[in-house]
This record gives sequence, structure tokens and C-alpha cells, in this order.
Amino acid sequence: MSDTLFFCPDILNNPQLSEQESQHCVKVLRMKEGDKIDVTDGKGFFYRCAILQAQAKRCVLSIEKSEGQVKPWNFHLQIAFAPTKNMDRNEWFVEKATEIGTDRFSPLLCRYSERKELKTERLEKISVSALKQSQQAFLPAIDEMTPFESFVASPFDGRKFIAHCHPSPKKTLAETYRKGVNALVLIGPEGDFSEQEVQQAVEMGFEAVSLGETRLRTETACWVACHTIQIINSLR
Amino acid sequence: MSDTLFFCPDILNNPQLSEQESQHCVKVLRMKEGDKIDVTDGKGFFYRCAILQAQAKRCVLSIEKSEGQVKPWNFHLQIAFAPTKNMDRNEWFVEKATEIGTDRFSPLLCRYSERKELKTERLEKISVSALKQSQQAFLPAIDEMTPFESFVASPFDGRKFIAHCHPSPKKTLAETYRKGVNALVLIGPEGDFSEQEVQQAVEMGFEAVSLGETRLRTETACWVACHTIQIINSLR
Repeated sequence: MSDTLFFCPDILNNPQLSEQESQHCVKVLRMKEGDKIDVTDGKGFFYRCAILQAQAKRCVLSIEKSEGQVKPWNFHLQIAFAPTKNMDRNEWFVEKATEIGTDRFSPLLCRYSERKELKTERLEKISVSALKQSQQAFLPAIDEMTPFESFVASPFDGRKFIAHCHPSPKKTLAETYRKGVNALVLIGPEGDFSEQEVQQAVEMGFEAVSLGETRLRTETACWVACHTIQIINSLR
Repeated sequence: MSDTLFFCPDILNNPQLSEQESQHCVKVLRMKEGDKIDVTDGKGFFYRCAILQAQAKRCVLSIEKSEGQVKPWNFHLQIAFAPTKNMDRNEWFVEKATEIGTDRFSPLLCRYSERKELKTERLEKISVSALKQSQQAFLPAIDEMTPFESFVASPFDGRKFIAHCHPSPKKTLAETYRKGVNALVLIGPEGDFSEQEVQQAVEMGFEAVSLGETRLRTETACWVACHTIQIINSLR
């Protein structure tokens, strides 16, 4: 595969790059009609394409070859988190978690959330560019922000964890999680989950866990949870 | 310990906060003479102090109690990396690696380095604030930038790894590393290590490893290496 990977989510029905991707292809990389590019739909496929029309705002493709990929991890990994006030930190987490592999991000509105609203468009852009940069074919899903109560009440097929800092006997995520199992991890806001939220989650079948010795920022905790699950699955 | 931790590296000889720390203490937090604050020297000690003089640029302390800490990890973890051109990404890595725990950062000058010079002062500030935020007592060391050749030739008491992307049979760091062992991991620049650099390192006793399936940015690779070592040590 060439070093540059393009993103075209609906390539089968509409084989042309978005305005932004077209600009990058034609203006920045100076690609011309007849040139070949590699594209992913973010749904598990890579496509080898030829450029039919190389216009700065509209780059039309013809698919020459498509190749389905096997997802590099054999489990479902979902991180539900209260986004931080500082948007850079949320974007940073989504970029890094996309690079190492995550299936789904679920922003939460919690009792002590410092951020009450979230535009997901920007996070989706960040995730797409991380996907392209790391040359993967599976784009994580990003949900709209959901109130904590309704989120913890919704079903999940796998083990559910809530990471919190309230004093209570907890195992670490690393020592309790077992490889190959779907995992959903809840990470709270800067001010942590309320004790009532923790209780609600536990009543809904979430296992309370710690992420280790040191006190972590929200976005670091998100990333630590995500990478912990990936690492344990990579062990023999 | 109170939520705010201050940093005073030479508190035993010179029990006063730096100008920046004094400002934060007196101007931002409005602390007054007689108030108590918690301080770390970054060398493994916490100090409970009373404020003797609360001046905006000079906050003088008297130590009331000192408490030595046991380092949360029983091994030495050193990451040697080629800093990225984008300084934010280096700062981000140092912040996150300080939060989860690292003993030493060693910036490298490699054949394909995009950044040939590095001011470490800013990285030290980032590391100090991450130390305070995560309420730890051991500040990582940050070396000046060193040429790759001389760095790999210097001794290290533990296992030495070099992570690179050149096609060759490699184990992943996660599957080859064993807990409790000192670890030094080399992470290359955006353009990777040169094949000659990889060969030099291997001749000096470095084990070539991969960090997993997906292609990672330099700063992500640094963090993945660091967290992989911490996680494996946290397992029973």
C-alpha cells in the first residue's frame, strides 16, 4: 500500500473523494487522472483506485481492486467517557485510541461533567485522519453525548467496567480483565463520578476497577484503559 | 494530602517556592502566612509545610513533617526517543509518561531525525506539572539530546530494546518483556531508524521489537512502549 491512504466511506455507491480529500489528493499531492491511490471505507475494506477526474473539489475514482481486512483485534472495545473541558485533550485521546485500535467512543454527560455539550464532527475528523495515518480499515464509531443514567441502563454484550477513585476495594483493570472478551470501560470527568453514579453502574452490572497507582487525568485514564485492554489481548 | 501539590527540588537547603510556584500559591490560591501546603522535592519525599512568608514572588516555608515514598514501580524504565518536529507531541508524551511513571527520558539525534535541536527546559516544566497533578514524588530525569551512536554505546543495567518498522522477524515488546526487569526502549523518528542504526543497536545488545499491528506515530509509540512495560509489571 502507498504511504498515503484516502478515506471514502460510501465509495461503492459514490466513488468520489470529499472536497477536503480531493484537495489533498489533487492540490497537495498533485495527483492526476490515471494515477492510482489507496482508499479505505472505514468499514474494513481497502480499495486500489484509479483517478478518473482530478478536480480540486471533486476527485472521481474507479475501483480496480478491493480487499477486505480482518480486524486486528478479535473483541469489541468501547470507551465511554466524560469529555474534558479542554477540547484538545478529548481530540488527543480520540486520535491516540484510534491509532492503537478502538471500536466505539461514547461521550457521557455525568453529574460532575465540566463539558455539558460536545460537537462530534471535529472528533470524527481527528479519528479519520488517525485511521489514515495508521493505515487501518476500521473507523471507530463516535456516539453523541448521552446522559450517564440512560447509558448505563443500555445493554452491552461483554464485561462492563467503571473506573473511579472513590476509596473502596478495587482490582485493577489489568488484573481482572481476561483476553478475548468484549469490554466497555467508563471513565469519569475531572471531578470523578458521583458516588450515586458508581452505585447505579454497579447495580447495572458494571465492575468497579482502578487503573493503577497514580492519579490520572481524564484523557490519560481513557487512553490507559484502552491500551490496557489491547495489551492484555496481545499477550500469549 | 491536599489536592494541590507544590514542587520544591532543593527544599532542605532552600525552603522557598520558585517565583512561579509562589505566584500560584499566593496569587492564585490566595494562601497566607500560617497556611499549610504539601510539597514534593521530586526525589521521593513529600513535605507538609507551613508558609512563613507569603510573598507573590517569594513564598518561604517551614517543614513540619517529611515522608519518604516507595517508588510505585520496582524497576527502572527509560525511554530514548527521537523528538518529533511538532513540539506539542513531545510535550504530550512527556506529560503522559510522567503521569503513568517513567524514570528517564533520553532524546536522541538520529540519522532521519526531523528535529535536530531540543530545549529541555520546557519538557522539564511539563514533567513537573504532570508530577504535581498526579501527586507523585519521583520526577523523571530528562537528558540533553544525544547522538544515536554514542547513546547506544553507553551501558545500561537491564534489557535494551529497539522498536523499528523495517521488515524482519520481531517479537512484540509485550510478549518478550518480563516483569521486574529494568528496561530501556528506543523509539525512532517519523522516518524510522536507518537500517545501519538498527544494526548498530543490535550489535550493542539491543533486542529488536515491534509495538503491535498498527503503524504508530512516534509519540504514540513512545507512550505505548512506556505503558506496555508498566502494565506487564502490574500483572500478577
